[in-house]
Amino acid sequence: MEEKEILIKLGHLLDEERIEHSIGVKECAAELAKIYNEDVSKAAIAGLLHDCAKGFDDHQLIQKSKEYNVKLDPISVLQKELIHGPLGAKIAKHLFNIKDKDILSAIEYHTYGRKDMTVLEKIIFLADLIEPGRDYPGVEKLRALAEKDLDRAVLKALDNNIIYIVTKGQLIHPNTIEARNYIIKELFFEKYE
Amino acid sequence: MEEKEILIKLGHLLDEERIEHSIGVKECAAELAKIYNEDVSKAAIAGLLHDCAKGFDDHQLIQKSKEYNVKLDPISVLQKELIHGPLGAKIAKHLFNIKDKDILSAIEYHTYGRKDMTVLEKIIFLADLIEPGRDYPGVEKLRALAEKDLDRAVLKALDNNIIYIVTKGQLIHPNTIEARNYIIKELFFEKYE
Repeated sequence: MEEKEILIKLGHLLDEERIEHSIGVKECAAELAKIYNEDVSKAAIAGLLHDCAKGFDDHQLIQKSKEYNVKLDPISVLQKELIHGPLGAKIAKHLFNIKDKDILSAIEYHTYGRKDMTVLEKIIFLADLIEPGRDYPGVEKLRALAEKDLDRAVLKALDNNIIYIVTKGQLIHPNTIEARNYIIKELFFEKYE
Repeated sequence: MEEKEILIKLGHLLDEERIEHSIGVKECAAELAKIYNEDVSKAAIAGLLHDCAKGFDDHQLIQKSKEYNVKLDPISVLQKELIHGPLGAKIAKHLFNIKDKDILSAIEYHTYGRKDMTVLEKIIFLADLIEPGRDYPGVEKLRALAEKDLDRAVLKALDNNIIYIVTKGQLIHPNTIEARNYIIKELFFEKYE
């Protein structure tokens, strides 16, 4: 599917602001892919499609999950916005005809991460948080770090996310903790003492 | 074993400052036990003994874990100070002759908590953080909350711990996240939507 065709289809699923964000993530992901020797066109497609299930309300998220056979974990059942990652991967596959497993897993895990993330997963996870439309304290620093050190940038972003979630009183997805513990082990512990 | 005898034995394992902290936790735990209709003498003994394995260095923690057959999880193997909880439960059992399972589990989980904590586990977890010797921003507020609402106080303390651990760049024990998610579900979600 051509990018134009993807954008037209996305336009039926997402509002204008979300489309703009998706284009921002696409461009940012492509830049990061260049830096970290990842496939630029895969990064662009994953970036463009990462939020393709973000336009659904809670009720639709549950319904569509049944329709597309998304297995819901106990946290996502309660914190329903988390569903848009794994559901998005299914929609990318079935509505956008994406067959590439790397792209699909980057969409699936872009919100809460997972242990031992692929480079493409890390790129989409980060691009979502640092694309040019994002504006929050520390984003400039995170952008600079992302260009220099992918793992340390992902770690910093996971730290930010956890502190944000705790401050908001939300549930923490265990994947986020596993993602963070894994990166800390890789970065800072001898293998493994 | 009488409290005097416990204190004499503890004196061989812990320095003076740690003994003082343990007496503070004992007294605070006994107060909380009164408020929440928990067994006051169990709370006192668990409070007194909660840190009985805290005097060991990393090497000793590993050695003693082998000796007492403490199964080490992947996080505790790297963040070794976490071992003093489960190892402490074994030492309380074998050196201090504590047979009561409630006391032993309160010692075991006092650092990182667990899903669906018992009232005594919550009391020791909290007393450790709010005993009179503790002094950090927010401790007064947490003390006041602990007297009014045990679950909300444990939640606040878990939040504090997670933010502290993230800020320090340490590994997060998955139990801590499970403990927090469980309390949030119990407090704020319909059973369960």
